[in-house]
Amino acid sequence: MPISGFPEWMPPQRMIEQRVLDRIRSTFELYGFSPLETRSVEPLETLVSKGETSKEVYLLRRLQADENAKDDDSLGLHFDLTVPFARFVVENAGKLQFPFRRYQIQKVWRGERPQEGRYREFLQADIDVVNRGELPFHYDTEMPLVIGDALSGLPIPAIRIQVNNRKVCEGFYRGLGLADTAQVLRTVDKLDKIGPARVAEALIETAGATRAQAEACLELAAISAEDGSFVDAVRKLGVDDPLLDEGLNELLQVVETARENAPGLVVAELKIARGLDYYTGTVYETQLRGYERFGSVSSGGRYDNLAASGNERFPGVGYSIGVSRMLGVLFGQNALSVSRSVPTCVLVALPNEDQRPDCVRIASALRRRGIPTEVAPSAAKFGKQIQYADRRGIPYVWFPGEPDTVKDIRSGDQVEADAAAWLPPAGDLHPVISAG
Amino acid sequence: MPISGFPEWMPPQRMIEQRVLDRIRSTFELYGFSPLETRSVEPLETLVSKGETSKEVYLLRRLQADENAKDDDSLGLHFDLTVPFARFVVENAGKLQFPFRRYQIQKVWRGERPQEGRYREFLQADIDVVNRGELPFHYDTEMPLVIGDALSGLPIPAIRIQVNNRKVCEGFYRGLGLADTAQVLRTVDKLDKIGPARVAEALIETAGATRAQAEACLELAAISAEDGSFVDAVRKLGVDDPLLDEGLNELLQVVETARENAPGLVVAELKIARGLDYYTGTVYETQLRGYERFGSVSSGGRYDNLAASGNERFPGVGYSIGVSRMLGVLFGQNALSVSRSVPTCVLVALPNEDQRPDCVRIASALRRRGIPTEVAPSAAKFGKQIQYADRRGIPYVWFPGEPDTVKDIRSGDQVEADAAAWLPPAGDLHPVISAG
Repeated sequence: MPISGFPEWMPPQRMIEQRVLDRIRSTFELYGFSPLETRSVEPLETLVSKGETSKEVYLLRRLQADENAKDDDSLGLHFDLTVPFARFVVENAGKLQFPFRRYQIQKVWRGERPQEGRYREFLQADIDVVNRGELPFHYDTEMPLVIGDALSGLPIPAIRIQVNNRKVCEGFYRGLGLADTAQVLRTVDKLDKIGPARVAEALIETAGATRAQAEACLELAAISAEDGSFVDAVRKLGVDDPLLDEGLNELLQVVETARENAPGLVVAELKIARGLDYYTGTVYETQLRGYERFGSVSSGGRYDNLAASGNERFPGVGYSIGVSRMLGVLFGQNALSVSRSVPTCVLVALPNEDQRPDCVRIASALRRRGIPTEVAPSAAKFGKQIQYADRRGIPYVWFPGEPDTVKDIRSGDQVEADAAAWLPPAGDLHPVISAG
Repeated sequence: MPISGFPEWMPPQRMIEQRVLDRIRSTFELYGFSPLETRSVEPLETLVSKGETSKEVYLLRRLQADENAKDDDSLGLHFDLTVPFARFVVENAGKLQFPFRRYQIQKVWRGERPQEGRYREFLQADIDVVNRGELPFHYDTEMPLVIGDALSGLPIPAIRIQVNNRKVCEGFYRGLGLADTAQVLRTVDKLDKIGPARVAEALIETAGATRAQAEACLELAAISAEDGSFVDAVRKLGVDDPLLDEGLNELLQVVETARENAPGLVVAELKIARGLDYYTGTVYETQLRGYERFGSVSSGGRYDNLAASGNERFPGVGYSIGVSRMLGVLFGQNALSVSRSVPTCVLVALPNEDQRPDCVRIASALRRRGIPTEVAPSAAKFGKQIQYADRRGIPYVWFPGEPDTVKDIRSGDQVEADAAAWLPPAGDLHPVISAG
């Protein structure tokens, strides 16, 4: 039976997912990110020390654990790839070259209550750059370009990256005279869920804001611009604070770099906050154009204090593509399809079982030249063998003979062919992914 | 801190692993296997119903589980990919085309006691063919060819596949007059661990064998041949049984098909039994030549009764490459290396921070033509920037100028170059894996 929150794609959907992952991975490598996988488990104390999702952890217990042995009681499945990466960097700092650029494509788990209908197992594709000591800001400007590139060249909707900077918010709140800036940020983060009126009430009730301060926070959150004009819009609100200045300058660099290299990709959206506690500057969210109502499919940000060892700090900036979430949205809307349900390009028909060795030789010859090939399961009537191909979308059936012939079962065209030389049109070699 | 049994490779090793996985995956697709991933968890009753590893299961528990909610108590991490696949096939039989050929490359977990120093998390790469009703035997002859192909073309030692058939053993034991053939099989399976003398004692003590019967079982187990001569060797032992005949005929087909298509790949080894209870016919194990002492790195077999739904049976045959186990052995012997520790082929040097936008443009131009490129982290002295490349094994440093130049830092050669046209030699484009 299906288990709530643990999605399983059928093979055609998995083929689409793999094509998407191939694009993501090759793009990450084009930008010089090294591959990494960390173990799926972390000690519970590592998991609960960071961020607010720590409460949604799955703990492991050995079925045959001794009563006395506590060894596995403290292991939990990781709920993201950033916390394990930070742990890995500190643990292996002596063996790594800094700044360290890595990508990581793995499953993560969240022990949510099943009735919520949310994923409890899903695939993420992360990039991060971490340095020892200080991490130059320009890496924050590079992240959106990598993600924009990784998710282009695929038959999925274009993305739009919403960017903000926590220093802008915190500096602004502080400049307004609000002391508990973290509480203000958490409250404003609920804007899309509960609306401005209730956010204002909550700011007054829980963050000690006056009506005027609450209104100013909402005005800041309403600012949105595809260019540097957001700086003037913030300035007009009349708040002055050095952290605000620093944040505006950083945010401007992200927006301007994107405008130059990938016009239309990035928008400054000053309501974006990101729930996770470990972000300290830039924050990113990502929407699929036309699918904005499904929320962010990819997010990240700058974290200056996630990893530390003694006096050493390892600040980082990263971005995580929510692959399962993104594909779940698109599959749910039937927005992606694939030209066949198997990798096979050619089915070698079997005239009779005695000829199987010959058919295996033909298949081997085709495979040696990169053509995905199967031999028919049995020496059924050719009509049934063609049906085997047709039901799977296999485009070609090969008939051994003197000479051999190959038939395009879509057009019915049949031509003489030599297994040592024949090639299908390039577009037929592998399954093709398309929109809709 | 490292956690016993949960290995983590450093990025160069992960690059090697990915190259191996790419080869495995592309080979599986060449043979027409469709990709599949199943969820990482199964209900405990699914896991414990099959095979003897069921006792080594990790159960999940939500950290924030309600006292009353029992929902997650019964979920465990899968310990192989065959049991989940069988469950998936039965669950989705109405949506699949049979025979169904799929591959699956995923992590599996075993809740072993930590002190044993065995993997508790590892990666497997499986192929299986499953049919509804009956599965033709010829699929058993195809499996070794696929695995032999998948693990060739890589700088790893050649493999040798040891094959046997449980019908040979069970028929032989039955023909000898031994009733509890399962117990005989389990005992003979310990041959490599405890030696023939102790196996004989155990057969007499636990399986009701006479000394002569025990000796006959050991004589069968000693038979090994690269060709069909094993049939005569078995016949000479003078045991007669129809199941034995059936098994010998099947085993002969596997050996002969391999001899024709991949000479030297397969050997009939009549001591091979495989511990898992669900195999019913052919069984495979795999050794790396020169690393036989490390045991099997890949195994599989025929299972006729693993999946069933009401009156419907879904017999299958499959093979699982123990990717982590195989690479763990080779890494442990320093038998694999990679030419650099990052994917990057070119580092664009940064004359000063103001020129970063120009350097980003150069990097984009190179990436557009598939050349993995990074821009230097800071405008340090060129000597330091070259050192950044050298420490990572990046072969080329690009100097913006009028004109631009590119330097092979291994030879010191520096030439004029245009980012819209320059290409590195093909062997430098991506990291190269080699033996030793």
